[in-house]
Amino acid sequence: MHAPSAQSRLAEHMRRTIALQQISGLLSWDQETHMPPRGASARAEQAAAIEAVAHAHRADPRIAEWADAIERDTLSPAERVSLDEALRIHRRAVRIPARLASALARTTTEAHEVWAAAREKARFDDFAPTLAEIVALKREEAACLAEPGQGLYDALLDDYEPGMTVEKAERLFGALRPALADLAARIAATGVEVALPGTRHAEDRQLALARELATVFGYDWQAGRLDLAVHPFSSGTLGDVRITTRIDPENPFENIYAAIHETGHAVYEQGMPEELAFTPAGAEASMGVHESQSRLFENQIGRSRAFCDWLFGAMERVLGPTGFDGPEALWRAANRVRPGLRRTEADEVHYNLHILMRFDLERELIAGDLAVGDLEAAWNDRFAADFGVAVPDAAQGVLQDIHWSAGLFGYFPTYSFGNIYAAELFAAMRADLPGLDAAISQGDIAPAIGWLREKIHRHGRLHAPDALIEMAVGHAPGTGPLIAYLEAKFAELYRL
Amino acid sequence: MHAPSAQSRLAEHMRRTIALQQISGLLSWDQETHMPPRGASARAEQAAAIEAVAHAHRADPRIAEWADAIERDTLSPAERVSLDEALRIHRRAVRIPARLASALARTTTEAHEVWAAAREKARFDDFAPTLAEIVALKREEAACLAEPGQGLYDALLDDYEPGMTVEKAERLFGALRPALADLAARIAATGVEVALPGTRHAEDRQLALARELATVFGYDWQAGRLDLAVHPFSSGTLGDVRITTRIDPENPFENIYAAIHETGHAVYEQGMPEELAFTPAGAEASMGVHESQSRLFENQIGRSRAFCDWLFGAMERVLGPTGFDGPEALWRAANRVRPGLRRTEADEVHYNLHILMRFDLERELIAGDLAVGDLEAAWNDRFAADFGVAVPDAAQGVLQDIHWSAGLFGYFPTYSFGNIYAAELFAAMRADLPGLDAAISQGDIAPAIGWLREKIHRHGRLHAPDALIEMAVGHAPGTGPLIAYLEAKFAELYRL
Repeated sequence: MHAPSAQSRLAEHMRRTIALQQISGLLSWDQETHMPPRGASARAEQAAAIEAVAHAHRADPRIAEWADAIERDTLSPAERVSLDEALRIHRRAVRIPARLASALARTTTEAHEVWAAAREKARFDDFAPTLAEIVALKREEAACLAEPGQGLYDALLDDYEPGMTVEKAERLFGALRPALADLAARIAATGVEVALPGTRHAEDRQLALARELATVFGYDWQAGRLDLAVHPFSSGTLGDVRITTRIDPENPFENIYAAIHETGHAVYEQGMPEELAFTPAGAEASMGVHESQSRLFENQIGRSRAFCDWLFGAMERVLGPTGFDGPEALWRAANRVRPGLRRTEADEVHYNLHILMRFDLERELIAGDLAVGDLEAAWNDRFAADFGVAVPDAAQGVLQDIHWSAGLFGYFPTYSFGNIYAAELFAAMRADLPGLDAAISQGDIAPAIGWLREKIHRHGRLHAPDALIEMAVGHAPGTGPLIAYLEAKFAELYRL
Repeated sequence: MHAPSAQSRLAEHMRRTIALQQISGLLSWDQETHMPPRGASARAEQAAAIEAVAHAHRADPRIAEWADAIERDTLSPAERVSLDEALRIHRRAVRIPARLASALARTTTEAHEVWAAAREKARFDDFAPTLAEIVALKREEAACLAEPGQGLYDALLDDYEPGMTVEKAERLFGALRPALADLAARIAATGVEVALPGTRHAEDRQLALARELATVFGYDWQAGRLDLAVHPFSSGTLGDVRITTRIDPENPFENIYAAIHETGHAVYEQGMPEELAFTPAGAEASMGVHESQSRLFENQIGRSRAFCDWLFGAMERVLGPTGFDGPEALWRAANRVRPGLRRTEADEVHYNLHILMRFDLERELIAGDLAVGDLEAAWNDRFAADFGVAVPDAAQGVLQDIHWSAGLFGYFPTYSFGNIYAAELFAAMRADLPGLDAAISQGDIAPAIGWLREKIHRHGRLHAPDALIEMAVGHAPGTGPLIAYLEAKFAELYRL
């Protein structure tokens, strides 16, 4: 009997580290779905305790020692990815001094209340000093994380979207903003307004529909469950991937598209390679790729004319009379375009405009080119320019998202990466699967799921996100397919 | 600014340790209530990971160092209890070698399957070799834990019931076995058999009744929730105490008494002193005291003639027609006595006989006086002697409980301590509260809850269990009140 190798020791350590991270995810899931109100303070203690031990695991100096002792040439590609990823996680943990980590944790925890109260009163000034602190701390964090020559914002962005840089993102986003603004303007010029029927649907019926949608989109109920949450999310991986939805009695789309969206995330996680479970390579390729799976299900399929054929029947069967005249009317309502103030309620035409402005503003904040005190004015100016709408108050403007209060800088653009990848993937999928629309109109999503399993899910984190998309579609990802998809779809919808 | 004191460092460390233990409890709760089937293997990894870090926290040598540096005289009584408890927890952790801890964890984990399969086939021989291993490991563990001069079983027992010894337990249990056997025989001699009506009640109605019962028994819904579980249990403390119940469509008592029982546990935990949250002193006095709170609610109150007045009305209102002629018939059915084979289905007369035989058998196993190979025969002989019933097979006999397969030796007697304490507490409560029965017959449990809050709940773990009971009732706990309560109750029920 000889001592375990450095490789097996590192693997065992990462296994434990990933298990602790999963526990942290379960605590959050429980908090959002089942925890009783008075459990909040104990949950904060528990979250701090698990974060402390998870951090200690990530920062364990033996990770670097084991890594040094491993012969890279003897490793399989997956083992090599896991080794690199373990080192990346370790570097991030050790580069941030304990003082900064604890200041960030404390400030963002406290900021939640401050942000919520400021939003309640619609007073940005109440939140500005706290946000200024967060920006300062994030700049400090970015400086710790940045490789030599890497920009501050790039260091933050890279954590969510490996290999992504501001330069690449700007190139990618470049054509998007004018195209979207132009499309939105042409739609607005039609003067067409689409109203929802406002029919009320009981919660139990809506939940039954959510379950049916998840099933149709390939969700494995032996490896998950559905609950309600104020802000729907999915969590977990492989054999335990949980989804949530939200019910608006008068607007069934809330539940329908939340359920389909979260199922997209969940089916990705349920389809991760089992043999990479509890290794760093057995994870999503990036946040953008994750989002592409949910968006493709939600938008390219879920809001398509073909799917509305099936969805109309399912709604009438499960919910009862919906007030829609037929699949065509349902499709028009599910795709109605309005220059609304809120990102989370945005249609496909406006959604990325919301993201692009946040991306620009947060980059300027991190660069130090925009002072927090000037953020509200900058927000309102940009919003007026892109949406043609005056922001009535900060609650519906600069204070609407939770992200910045939580210290999430560099996260917003991944939503648009997701939309861009989704359009790329769907175009390639359609080319590969000639009967796709016919299948979708029957509620048969299996061909699409099979294609995604093969092209995306089974690869875990083995490839960088742009390389993965390129492997799937045959070229580097760009905005062409997204713009073409939106142009074609909304030209038909609004007879442009 | 000076360095934190040893006391505050120890307190912070124990806070973290307790938070990790709470997380472990949440993982178990989730596993029993919400986890999807395919989540089991990842959950095993997560449980192992949290146990490893919790163990490292308990075994941290700084606990002993900090404790040494603390001036005991400067501490409050609660701080002293927390210090002693921290050291006790620490000693237990460091006394068990890693090799033994891991052998115990592995063997008991694997034993679960072996036990379940053996029970399925009703073949004790299939489980005996595994049980022999577990007994050997538990003997080894007990030897590590025992203080000089302390017996092996005492070392195990003390962990669940601080200060309890075999000698004390034998003295306590001495009069119980003949008294119960005699009472059971007299009841059997009446030839009276009570049947249940067998009316079916839908799950949603039964759950509504469980919720109403929990409310009536003082459960704070802001600090908890109710779910279904195969084996009902409660978990958590203070602001997050969750209960579970189980539904038998044809036997509403399953749900009713599970709900009341678990509410008893939960109301104890919800009533812990808030100022001792996340300290070792802010916990139950013992497993026996915990069980006394559930048993008092379930039996002394829940199965009383007075409570059946209210319960009958509640059942008819919430469940619909029950098939009982009235409160009197309900009371007789809720207290029917039958010498059944299973502990978990036992009535109040037989329950402690089940425990006493397990107590005797497991002591002999740990002492080495009974070989595992002879356990089934010893079980069956003892059962025939105490219950007058031949055990038809091992599944309904020696294999019925999960405890031994999980390495729980020294745990069974705490069920009887709970019954003994419950009778003591209820007798004293009745003496203190003259209008108690009248209130109970109206479904008003508040006076009883108030009494328990004052006498038991608010004391946390500040006193040893026997001292706590003595403070509450005015004398050292004994079996007199339990025997008197059972004699009086069943004399009336069976006209003895």
